[in-house]
Parts: sequence; C-alpha cells; structure tokens
Amino acid sequence: MRAVVMRDSSLVVNNIPMPEPEAGEVLVKTLACGICGSDLHTLKFGQQMVETSLETGGSFNMDLARDVVMGHEFCAEILDHGPGTTGVLKPGTRVCSVPMMFRGGNTQTVGYSNDVPGGYSENMVLFESLLLEVPNGLATELATLTEPMAVGYHAVAMAKLNKSEVPLVIGCGPVGLAVISALKLAGVGPIVAADFSATRRDLAVKMGADIVVNPAEASPYQSWEVCAAIPENDLNAPINPLMGVQPFRDAVIFECVGVPGVIGQIMLGAPRGARIVVVGVCMEHDQIRPLVGINKELNIQFVLGYTPDEFSSTLRNIAEGVMDVEPLVTGTVGLDGVSKAFSDLADPEGHAKILVDPSI
Amino acid sequence: MRAVVMRDSSLVVNNIPMPEPEAGEVLVKTLACGICGSDLHTLKFGQQMVETSLETGGSFNMDLARDVVMGHEFCAEILDHGPGTTGVLKPGTRVCSVPMMFRGGNTQTVGYSNDVPGGYSENMVLFESLLLEVPNGLATELATLTEPMAVGYHAVAMAKLNKSEVPLVIGCGPVGLAVISALKLAGVGPIVAADFSATRRDLAVKMGADIVVNPAEASPYQSWEVCAAIPENDLNAPINPLMGVQPFRDAVIFECVGVPGVIGQIMLGAPRGARIVVVGVCMEHDQIRPLVGINKELNIQFVLGYTPDEFSSTLRNIAEGVMDVEPLVTGTVGLDGVSKAFSDLADPEGHAKILVDPSI
Repeated sequence: MRAVVMRDSSLVVNNIPMPEPEAGEVLVKTLACGICGSDLHTLKFGQQMVETSLETGGSFNMDLARDVVMGHEFCAEILDHGPGTTGVLKPGTRVCSVPMMFRGGNTQTVGYSNDVPGGYSENMVLFESLLLEVPNGLATELATLTEPMAVGYHAVAMAKLNKSEVPLVIGCGPVGLAVISALKLAGVGPIVAADFSATRRDLAVKMGADIVVNPAEASPYQSWEVCAAIPENDLNAPINPLMGVQPFRDAVIFECVGVPGVIGQIMLGAPRGARIVVVGVCMEHDQIRPLVGINKELNIQFVLGYTPDEFSSTLRNIAEGVMDVEPLVTGTVGLDGVSKAFSDLADPEGHAKILVDPSI
Repeated sequence: MRAVVMRDSSLVVNNIPMPEPEAGEVLVKTLACGICGSDLHTLKFGQQMVETSLETGGSFNMDLARDVVMGHEFCAEILDHGPGTTGVLKPGTRVCSVPMMFRGGNTQTVGYSNDVPGGYSENMVLFESLLLEVPNGLATELATLTEPMAVGYHAVAMAKLNKSEVPLVIGCGPVGLAVISALKLAGVGPIVAADFSATRRDLAVKMGADIVVNPAEASPYQSWEVCAAIPENDLNAPINPLMGVQPFRDAVIFECVGVPGVIGQIMLGAPRGARIVVVGVCMEHDQIRPLVGINKELNIQFVLGYTPDEFSSTLRNIAEGVMDVEPLVTGTVGLDGVSKAFSDLADPEGHAKILVDPSI
C-alpha cells in the first residue's frame, strides 16, 4: 500500500507492507486524515518530542531512525476484523477513533509509532474497542475534524471556566479555533481572540469569537480589558470602550501558538490573577520570567489531548451541528501532496486545516 | 539615626535623618527585623526586581541609584503619632505591620522604598491603620516572624489543598519552613520535605514535616510516591515502602528555593497532574520545557505575599502557640553585623533566620 513515510526528517511517498490486524484490532481503509500542527513540529523537533516522552512517561516513543507514518486525525472505513474482535461494527462502517493502540502491554499513539501506520497511508489497523461509528449523514471530512476539535473541547473543560471569567484566545490556528468553538459551546463570553492573520481572524469570527484583534494594531490585553468591563449578566450589552475598565472580570487566556516566547509574552501581558491554559505544543526549551508570574500571582495550566468521553462528545457535537466545523477545512490533497501541504501550512494566510485523502 | 543603607549593591552602616511621620503615620523604634532571602536577592538582582515591578504593576518601585534601607519583617515600639492619626495604640505599644505605606497616592513597600526606611534602622514610620498590637506576652523575636510565616500561610491558602492531596516541599529555608508550618496547621499530610542541608532537614521536622529527604541520597519524588500510597483516611498508618505506590493521591509541590532551574527540575520530577506552587522568588530569567508540562498536564500557581487578614491570622497563630516558630531564629546581630549576616545566610548549614536588633 502507499503511504507518506517520515524518514531522515523528510516526507517521502513509498510502498510499504499492508498492516495486519492483531488481537482486538481491525483493518481499515483511510478515508481522510487531517494534517496537524504537531506533525509539522514533529518533522522538525521529533527528537525532543521522543526524549521528553521517554522522560515523562508519555506515549510518543518512536525510534526516528526507523520509518514512521504520521497522521492521527482520521476517518476510516472498516475492511476486516482481526482475531479476538466482536465484529459488532461491520465492514463498510465509517469510524473515528482516539489514535491509541495497545500492543504487547504498551500504549502506542497511532501516527507516532514505528509499528503501526498513521492516517497518511491507504490503510491502518485500529483498536476495535475504541472505534466510534460516524453517525449516518455526517460528511467524512467533518468527522475527520473530531480529533482536533476534541483538543479544544478538553482544554476548555480543563480550564473549568465560570461565567464571571472572560476568555482570551492567543493564536487562531486550528487549535485556537477549536478552543473558540468549545468556548462558544460552553456559553462563556465575550470571547476575545487574537491572530496576526486576517484569514484566521475571519475564521475565528465564524467559529464564535465576539471580538478579534490583530496584535500588530492593538493590544489583545487592552481589548480583553474592555470586554472584562461588561457585566456578566448582560453579555449582549454593547461594548463601549469609553465605559472604562471596571468592574473587572477574571481572565482565562488560552495559549494556542506553541512557539518559544509566547508563554512569557502572555505572562507579561496578562492581568493580575489571570489563568493561562497552554494548549499550543512548544517542543523546544522556552524562557520565562518567574518574577512576572509571582508579581501577578498567575496560574499556568498545561493540557494535552482529551479523554475518550470528550472525544465521543465532540463527534456527537459535530454530527448534531452544535459545533460548526465546516469553515475549518481549507484544502484536500492526495498522498503525493502531503509534503507540499506541510510547507503551505507554514503560511497562516493560506490555510487552516488541510485533509489528506489517500484515494486521490 | 543609624541604619544599614543599600548603596551601589553593597550594605553600609550610616547615619541618616530620622523619618518624620506624615498624615496617618506613626514614628516607631525598631525592636527587631528579620533578614529575608528576598533582601539577599535584591542586593544582587535589584535592577531586575525594579524593572519587573514597573512592567507588572508591582510595588517595588525603588530608584537603586538612591539609598534604600531594607528590612520588611519587623516588630517595633510606638514612639510618636503623626497628624491625622487616632492614637488608639499608645506610645510604648509593641506592634507588627504589613510592610506597606500609602504616600501621595502611591503604594510603597517598607523595606523597598527610597522614601521611608525599612527595619534595618533604629527608627521607621509606619501606617497607623495597618498596625497590629503584639499580644501581651509574645516575645518580640517571635512576633518578628509574623511576616515570613504569613508568606507560607498565604501559599498554602492559595494552594487550596484537599485531604486527598499529599504535599511535597522543595527547599527548607525560611520560606519552605513557613510552608511546612502552614501545612501542619491545615491538617494535610503526610508532609514530605526535601533539602540538601541536614540543619534545614532537622528544622523541617521541628516545623512539622513527616518525611524529610536529602536529594543527594534519594529522590524526593519517589519518597512522595510512597507517601501518596497511604490512604487518606489513615494518615497514622505506618509508612511501608513495600506497600507499593497505588492508589496514588494527588501531588501539590511547593517550590521554595527561588533560583533558576528549580521550576524546570520540579516539572521533570513531578507526577502526572501535579500542581506546583511557586513560593520561592527567582528574579532571573529561567528556562522551562513546556512539553514536560504538557505531557503531564501540570499546573503552576505563582504566589506572592499575603492578605492583611492572613497576616493578622499568622500573628494570632504565633501568639497562641499554634505555629511554633521558635526553632527558626538561629542568630541575632546588630546593625554592624548585617553585612556579614547576609554572607553567612548564603550557607544553608549555618542559619535559618537571623534577626537584626538595632539596639545592640
């Protein structure tokens, strides 16, 4: 079968052996797979990712000297069942899954494994008990967005927001947009969002942001202050910059950029007592100034992934139209187009989410 | 009057003008003043502290080109009342106070100000409405410990511990010891504490630590794991390393060192889902690895100071013997001995808290 292989920090299309389903596994045909910012990071900083995973008990334990087929945001169709499966979901059923595998007592992440291929390939094996049937009528490309949207859903759940808090989202790439969507669903607001890219600010509005800010033109923190002056019992009140900045509501700031320096910038910009939720995945060393955090008594919550419950809730939210994810998909490529898509995604003006369809 | 002046990053004993109480202020005689780790830091990194304070709206807005008399952990005796005071507390009354002043619409910190001297001087002016009378019978040297103990009391209050959580205190200098004392008072445990110094480990036990660890010999995190396996409803159960590490209780780790690298080390050692409370004051830039925090979904809470309520509760706790602070005082010097005491405090084996008594 054909697959996009990560080898020596580059991506090559190759024929590799079809995976065989082991106990509890099913063989699937990949229908579509989203390209994640973490995949771009991994191509560049894979070694840091693997080393940190080993140090911290994570499940990204690849050997980068060997081939890896990435892709963990997938929708697939069941082809065949391996030994020890129940067969409840028949061949032909479309499924999504948390990208996890359990082989030989080890937990592996589908898309960051040497043993099983991820979604940048024509076929995969998945763990049967994790499969979720795509509700009838939901388009494959929208079901594929379950995984990235679940990341935002989890981040907002971990933030445990209350209605007296006003959220500020820094960075409106796919992660930031998923957070905005989950904030909208949670009914908190007004939602303030910041990105240098006009394309992304437009998407932020479509996903539910009430106020968008270009940090090149205005301070996201000052925009937040104006919003924080709106009484929480009157979210529909007109936003008037002249009304002053009292009474303050509390700040919950979502870091959705994931490059060095951003956490430190947010700490400097944040109002006193703010909570910062780090959703962006910075794989490099980073600098902070503890005294800034101390003087403002800031709180930083790092988050990762989602629970299986959050994943299935997200699929249901998408299927029921409660989360409108359609604006997110800005392109589709075949396996031959993946390498170029990785380059294209470096430009925030061009794309939000590019899907890979191995059949084209 | 005589005072220890910080000038050009060194400490010199000098005669300076007696301060005059302005509206709402009283003139006091300094009975004793503790030397704080923050004062040692300020002598070395004062410029960073001032710059960060200006950037973050803090109240450490000194001009280091001008003289500063440090000292913010004091017990004093009222000598005279300025204009606009009530005079409720008579001359001769011993008092403690939150080290704050309000002059010309600005908040200043006593001990980090160009306008008013701190406790390393024979006399000070204090804000009358902040004064707390030292309860009859409480020794002056113990009352002097109200300020540093309030720092620990606040840190534990901010941590909002529940009984299912097991605390780990990294660093048993005065800040760590204050945290241990507050944890003991809060009734959480077992309390695990780590320090390279045998003297400080002994003090940690006296202040209430149940388990002390020398990080040169054993991992504080492994010791914590053993303790976390003790059921929360049986805190008096014998601690048996063979009982295994399940079921885990949750970790709340207090960073009480305040030098670069420690936050990163704690992130690496911490169990998954741990909460880290940063009480140590690191005034330099620091490096962290966000991916470590992300993989473990860590939470970092920075804390600073205390509320006036926490300060007065601490004085009451000390006076009533609920907090036994006597072991903390390991030395007393006159004004001429302050500079040497700063050097001595750099060696953790020698001292915990040195008090300055301007009368000797």
